[in-house]
Amino acid sequence: MTDLASLDQRTLIHPHTVIGDPAEPLVLDRGEGALLWDTDGNQYLDGTCGLWQCPVGHGRAELADVAAEQIRKLEFYSSFGDYSNAPSIRLAERLLSLAPAGLERVFLTNGGSEGNETAIKLARLAFHHAGSPERTVVLARHGGYHGMGGASLAATGIEGLRAGYGPLLPDVEWLGKPHGIEHGPDATDILVAELEQRIEEIGPHRIAAFIGEPVLGVGGMVPPPEGYWPRVQEVLRRNGILLIVDEIVTAFGRTGHWFGSERFGVEPDMIVTAKGLTSGYIPMGAVLIGRRVLELAEGATFLHGFTYNGHPVGAAVALANLDLIEKENLLERATALGARLRARLDPLAELPHVREVRGVGLMLGIEFADRPTAPVQAGCRADGVVVRASGTSIVLSPPLVITEDQIDTLADVLCKHVAVAAS
Amino acid sequence: MTDLASLDQRTLIHPHTVIGDPAEPLVLDRGEGALLWDTDGNQYLDGTCGLWQCPVGHGRAELADVAAEQIRKLEFYSSFGDYSNAPSIRLAERLLSLAPAGLERVFLTNGGSEGNETAIKLARLAFHHAGSPERTVVLARHGGYHGMGGASLAATGIEGLRAGYGPLLPDVEWLGKPHGIEHGPDATDILVAELEQRIEEIGPHRIAAFIGEPVLGVGGMVPPPEGYWPRVQEVLRRNGILLIVDEIVTAFGRTGHWFGSERFGVEPDMIVTAKGLTSGYIPMGAVLIGRRVLELAEGATFLHGFTYNGHPVGAAVALANLDLIEKENLLERATALGARLRARLDPLAELPHVREVRGVGLMLGIEFADRPTAPVQAGCRADGVVVRASGTSIVLSPPLVITEDQIDTLADVLCKHVAVAAS
Repeated sequence: MTDLASLDQRTLIHPHTVIGDPAEPLVLDRGEGALLWDTDGNQYLDGTCGLWQCPVGHGRAELADVAAEQIRKLEFYSSFGDYSNAPSIRLAERLLSLAPAGLERVFLTNGGSEGNETAIKLARLAFHHAGSPERTVVLARHGGYHGMGGASLAATGIEGLRAGYGPLLPDVEWLGKPHGIEHGPDATDILVAELEQRIEEIGPHRIAAFIGEPVLGVGGMVPPPEGYWPRVQEVLRRNGILLIVDEIVTAFGRTGHWFGSERFGVEPDMIVTAKGLTSGYIPMGAVLIGRRVLELAEGATFLHGFTYNGHPVGAAVALANLDLIEKENLLERATALGARLRARLDPLAELPHVREVRGVGLMLGIEFADRPTAPVQAGCRADGVVVRASGTSIVLSPPLVITEDQIDTLADVLCKHVAVAAS
Repeated sequence: MTDLASLDQRTLIHPHTVIGDPAEPLVLDRGEGALLWDTDGNQYLDGTCGLWQCPVGHGRAELADVAAEQIRKLEFYSSFGDYSNAPSIRLAERLLSLAPAGLERVFLTNGGSEGNETAIKLARLAFHHAGSPERTVVLARHGGYHGMGGASLAATGIEGLRAGYGPLLPDVEWLGKPHGIEHGPDATDILVAELEQRIEEIGPHRIAAFIGEPVLGVGGMVPPPEGYWPRVQEVLRRNGILLIVDEIVTAFGRTGHWFGSERFGVEPDMIVTAKGLTSGYIPMGAVLIGRRVLELAEGATFLHGFTYNGHPVGAAVALANLDLIEKENLLERATALGARLRARLDPLAELPHVREVRGVGLMLGIEFADRPTAPVQAGCRADGVVVRASGTSIVLSPPLVITEDQIDTLADVLCKHVAVAAS
């Protein structure tokens, strides 16, 4: 083990590791496009963007220049109260120009969890202010992932991630996992009926918001059953419940659209974003806030905020990153390369240990029926390809700048190791 | 109003503002040392660092270069599981070399709220794993501020910040505000007796952790009564309760020491930091984790983390920032300039509307007895000086690189407006 790897083990605790028993780290040194190199010079093809965050790929010098220029000018000042800065204002304007109809204001954050904490707090505050303080319940879904803070974890429907941290934030109520194969051909009817029944049981007058990802991310890249979102939206509107769409993974191109909400025909009351906003170059997120929320909360003082909200460096990098996504036609690329990769992976569904191959745009998942996925991740890495084992699925979300050849390599290596897992 | 200011009002919601009724923003354009300029070219002397975050001052070109260099090499990759990067490892090593005794591991975050969410979750997990799942209670203090996420807000003892967002995370129990003038000369005895009594009432076997800032920050820059911290620590240790010290404001020089814990003679089980770690140039924080926590949690899988944990750009900038703090002797400077400013402000305590002048190092507060503090903030700004009205106090935390002349200007302008408030 290198000195650096050994120092890592003696000093750091990484997320999702065993305390007191650190793994030997893979110390990454540099990146370019869809390629990464570790400190020993080994090369890896990045099939995941780490955690979905880099549509424009690694090591873009343009973004380094933008960050440095902004730091030299004004690195940061709090945006609490009346303090502001030009990059934040320009970014808010840009986001609203890209967003689905009805979204009218932007609250800038530093990441996805902060965004969901913000959206849940704002939904409760809006009803409290509007004279319905009993509307505190958040409807969430099994299989959903919304972050690791107090409120965002409470709304996360993956049991293993919640164990040992309770009691969690109260007044979160559960709906079934929106996954077609678990419910059969009538999945949408079944899920919508469940939603209506749960609302009736809880009482619509007690429910502030519904929160969901357009496509389950950590839950395994699971697209919704056909027609799910417009029908869910209709039920929520009829019951006066706000719709928070968590687009931390899906926004900024991965589904082939700026927002997954567009792709699935839904007009949320709030959209939570992060990751792709800056391609992860600087930690940042944004919550887009719709008319209904603004009307309910009009006149309320929003006593909420995190120190680095409205960070000018993050905002400047986000603007340049959105320019790259646009100029390089990365939305179209997500659709085209997603189809190319999907065509290569679909035959895997014939294997008896593969339960499903699925996805939207350039976010794909392969779910195993009856065996662990970690060996596939390890096998691919040994062959220089990074994929991610997430529960019972292997998930893929490469940079949108990945080349056709690299897509083919990713498919070749992954198919080999999924086949190996058969034995 | 400028086009940019008007665009701000039409697109953004800032933290701590009225929804639907935005103030005209002060759009800051550039900064240098302790000076700021808005987009109209007006100059301001920064008496607050925004939210305490910039010990090394604004616009440091060295940090721009470091950020750009790291972005060109490896802008970011997730540090979940075994992925790592050299700047994060070096930063962890550096932090442990600076930290009080007993702190042995580092968990990197993106800011203060995330740090407190992490510390509270880890405290609960540690006891859950060690066979005491009933130890879930967090002891917190009135006047404390720990952040705006689900768990960090629940532990924040400022009522106005909690209203309208409930129900909050359960199992937080309250202690009185650790403020000398509220309890008289026996304040420490009174607060320690209250702590012992509350522990007895709740049952020590139900309490996971105590959380507190060495000096109350948002609560008004309130130092603890004499001898408070060592006695609190003794009571907690005797009862097997973990001590989480929230040093988001105090770490990295502001009190004249690397950590406020040193200044007050305490050896925490966890220290939460952010702000000064990178001087706010890139959003980042770090939780330092002590031996007792590691022993309790040994073998537990820490299923927790935020996307941008272990950000190489933040870590590289943090290392360079810590170098600047060291090379420019900013700890000594905090002590010397804090004393200089304090000597100028102390006479204000004679004014009938001033309840107290207080502070440690270069974090000072002036509390009013019976009138609003906002007019002082506005008056100072009109004279080109930024101070912050926080509840009933005016709070000061200028960059540690502020010059002697600038300290004198800050004192002159502030004294004038505190006197004006008398009438």
